[in-house]
Amino acid sequence: MNDAKITLNADIGESFGAWKMGDDQLIMPHIDWANVACGFHASDPLTMLETVKLAKQHQVSIGAHPSYPDLVGFGRRHMACKPDEITAMVQYQVGALKAIANGQHMSVSYVKPHGALYNDMLSDGNIFDAVCGAISALKQKSEQPLPLMIMATPENHAWLMRAEEHGVELIFEGFADRAYDDNGRLRSRQYSDAVYDNDEQIIEQGRRFNAGEPIISINGKSLNIKIDSLCVHGDNPKAISTIEKLRSLLVGD
Amino acid sequence: MNDAKITLNADIGESFGAWKMGDDQLIMPHIDWANVACGFHASDPLTMLETVKLAKQHQVSIGAHPSYPDLVGFGRRHMACKPDEITAMVQYQVGALKAIANGQHMSVSYVKPHGALYNDMLSDGNIFDAVCGAISALKQKSEQPLPLMIMATPENHAWLMRAEEHGVELIFEGFADRAYDDNGRLRSRQYSDAVYDNDEQIIEQGRRFNAGEPIISINGKSLNIKIDSLCVHGDNPKAISTIEKLRSLLVGD
Amino acid sequence: MNDAKITLNADIGESFGAWKMGDDQLIMPHIDWANVACGFHASDPLTMLETVKLAKQHQVSIGAHPSYPDLVGFGRRHMACKPDEITAMVQYQVGALKAIANGQHMSVSYVKPHGALYNDMLSDGNIFDAVCGAISALKQKSEQPLPLMIMATPENHAWLMRAEEHGVELIFEGFADRAYDDNGRLRSRQYSDAVYDNDEQIIEQGRRFNAGEPIISINGKSLNIKIDSLCVHGDNPKAISTIEKLRSLLVGD
Amino acid sequence: MNDAKITLNADIGESFGAWKMGDDQLIMPHIDWANVACGFHASDPLTMLETVKLAKQHQVSIGAHPSYPDLVGFGRRHMACKPDEITAMVQYQVGALKAIANGQHMSVSYVKPHGALYNDMLSDGNIFDAVCGAISALKQKSEQPLPLMIMATPENHAWLMRAEEHGVELIFEGFADRAYDDNGRLRSRQYSDAVYDNDEQIIEQGRRFNAGEPIISINGKSLNIKIDSLCVHGDNPKAISTIEKLRSLLVGD
Repeated sequence: MNDAKITLNADIGESFGAWKMGDDQLIMPHIDWANVACGFHASDPLTMLETVKLAKQHQVSIGAHPSYPDLVGFGRRHMACKPDEITAMVQYQVGALKAIANGQHMSVSYVKPHGALYNDMLSDGNIFDAVCGAISALKQKSEQPLPLMIMATPENHAWLMRAEEHGVELIFEGFADRAYDDNGRLRSRQYSDAVYDNDEQIIEQGRRFNAGEPIISINGKSLNIKIDSLCVHGDNPKAISTIEKLRSLLVGD
Repeated sequence: MNDAKITLNADIGESFGAWKMGDDQLIMPHIDWANVACGFHASDPLTMLETVKLAKQHQVSIGAHPSYPDLVGFGRRHMACKPDEITAMVQYQVGALKAIANGQHMSVSYVKPHGALYNDMLSDGNIFDAVCGAISALKQKSEQPLPLMIMATPENHAWLMRAEEHGVELIFEGFADRAYDDNGRLRSRQYSDAVYDNDEQIIEQGRRFNAGEPIISINGKSLNIKIDSLCVHGDNPKAISTIEKLRSLLVGD
Repeated sequence: MNDAKITLNADIGESFGAWKMGDDQLIMPHIDWANVACGFHASDPLTMLETVKLAKQHQVSIGAHPSYPDLVGFGRRHMACKPDEITAMVQYQVGALKAIANGQHMSVSYVKPHGALYNDMLSDGNIFDAVCGAISALKQKSEQPLPLMIMATPENHAWLMRAEEHGVELIFEGFADRAYDDNGRLRSRQYSDAVYDNDEQIIEQGRRFNAGEPIISINGKSLNIKIDSLCVHGDNPKAISTIEKLRSLLVGD
Repeated sequence: MNDAKITLNADIGESFGAWKMGDDQLIMPHIDWANVACGFHASDPLTMLETVKLAKQHQVSIGAHPSYPDLVGFGRRHMACKPDEITAMVQYQVGALKAIANGQHMSVSYVKPHGALYNDMLSDGNIFDAVCGAISALKQKSEQPLPLMIMATPENHAWLMRAEEHGVELIFEGFADRAYDDNGRLRSRQYSDAVYDNDEQIIEQGRRFNAGEPIISINGKSLNIKIDSLCVHGDNPKAISTIEKLRSLLVGD
């Protein structure tokens, strides 16, 4: 994870029982890291097993993608969970995926909380600590804890220091296809200009992240946000084409 | 697990959220092995964490107690799940408990399926194979798979051979407080004489199991059933007193 | 429901939270009766509300489509539920849909159990009685109970008599796009010839049902199966085209 | 509901599957109104059926007690649900209970939201409106909507006016065994003095509510809070004895 190269990651395995979501077959060949749903916002044991097999086939690393327990709300609704509830639910979900991965001779390489839990981590330090504590306690004797993926912001350094108290390494994630507000946070999806829909804009923001250049906020402000990985979305050929362009850019560097 | 001594095991950690079941504080000091619910028929991540801590405090070994996904039915209702669904759900639950146990520097020592899944294993070889396959695949390179606890019957040998094909060791479980039918199966709870309610009868059946003597079926038939562990129940002082008598008997031998 | 005209019905509203299933917008204009999922095998309260609104817009009658409680298995897995559990779960689901329908000035016109519960009704008379009893008890003083939709077989008469003991009227459902075995039951989907994939065969079977002529089993046997409604499936333009042909046929008569 | 007499209500039917909570048999003879859980924070269809039968036996009126969908958290955790999600989930739960009650020739007489939803109604007017809108839409043509039970505060009048816009009548609920803060809200359970544990204090607060006298806040401030019903708790003989004293007081007036 110390490699300077920016990776591509995607949320994967978000089908549930008979319901399909996304097109994992289509996107898997184009990513480095798969954030695999663990049954609390999406997926179920059999879907997890099939997702792990697909990742293995494409030699994609697996990350656990734990969530609040909210299938109906897809883990997107904030729930007022206590820190020890969060610690336990993160360990539960990471362990469940780890076992299923182990069964396929795969391992879990990192943890990326999902949805509301992902957001709440950065707005409530107690939740951040609960997640870090959960991950830290899971390590075997001679191991390092799994790294934790969080949203890259201008405050990366402060979070690095807080995570370090738990011995947890951070992976900073950026978005090429999302607008950023002046404060360096993702622009809310409630605004129509929150998601970029033209390739040029997406590629340009990806290029800036990759080159270590500042990105430009919705209001034209320069934002210094360092990232380790770009989150991509793709369940149609056009989206995949954009991912391929981002890929060329990263490899070309 | 190769020790000839008969152990005492109990189903533990079967509370769920705000609902309490059993009195784990009361029984934990009296058992060797705790079969810990994994969230599919009972328990939730936080309850699992508290259960693991209690087991650790009393130096009790932890077994995973996976189930069909049926909280409302407490895992007691047969569900027509396919073998690959069962494989995945067993791995999911064992892994979830393993992570929570690891977080407390504990490990999972065996697997005992719960309720309808426990029964279905012995009535459908495909289900038995699915459970064994799940456990077998979970082992790390140099490890043995976790042992599987099943009900002891006169057919122990056949099950040992079938489990061996998966490299899985079996732990045979008997019941001191339950009547057996002539075929060596537990008498159904639909009959009023299925459960012993006097201590003498319970202790005598425990003594026979421990001494390797045949037990006596409901109709007076001698049954040769070898066991490794006795399942006990106890959420009141009288039940605990019976467990203590069984304990003296086992230790006294 | 006493009208001799054969209606078209379809399973509708089977999305769940963020997951979409089927294309209700596409099929709704082409059916008479919508079997609306009630949250146990699919759907959730908000999805039910949206489904009811769509049915209202197209003046389609609403039926409750209750199921065993099994979202992961989409209600397709047999669960060993007791009759009183089934009675209570049917009332719960029918009532939930009725309230949401009432909120839109719509009513629930019939009940069609889903998946494994639909099949189990015809293989276990106790389950059939539990469903009929649930429906019968729901009626208001001066009302008739809601009719119950079951699969049409050569044994329609026996089921009519059994339902009559509960005061419940039956609606018999046939399938134009499914092969029937010689015993008049649907050919299992485990066989490759279970589902018809050419229009001619589908239309011909629909024509026979509509004309009151015997249909032809997979082995060429004549089967006298009277139906009140044809179940159709359609989430793509080709399927919709087939439904339109069936519709012309029914209206043309 | 227009009767000036203060009634006693209690949260009832909060068992879930194999897990028991409270002692409904014990408290039911002592209350007027039973707030019956509807499966989202507690209960299941069969438990609801048994609860309705028990209420009928004791001629106790039934209220629906809907909740956020959170069994693990017993509906006590705030969830960020949208107004239309709340509208649909309230209708779903009220309808489910109504059907089960109708099956026993009982009806649902009012709605009291549970836990976090109960609290959120008074802190977010949009949620209050969503609940009122749900109830209002459920009424049949010539009926009044079901009354809504909310916590009595010094702001009763403002809520009455807001509810009136939906045509919904309010029932104001007070607590004899809970301390009130100076602002007329319940003192948080995080403080050790939040719950009264001596009978005298409970009876005195009940007397004041019943007599229309101000109650005294934790800091000695007089609070004018008018109520229609007292919420009582009782799963042990001592608690029941307190309820009986409250009952005598109410009847004696």
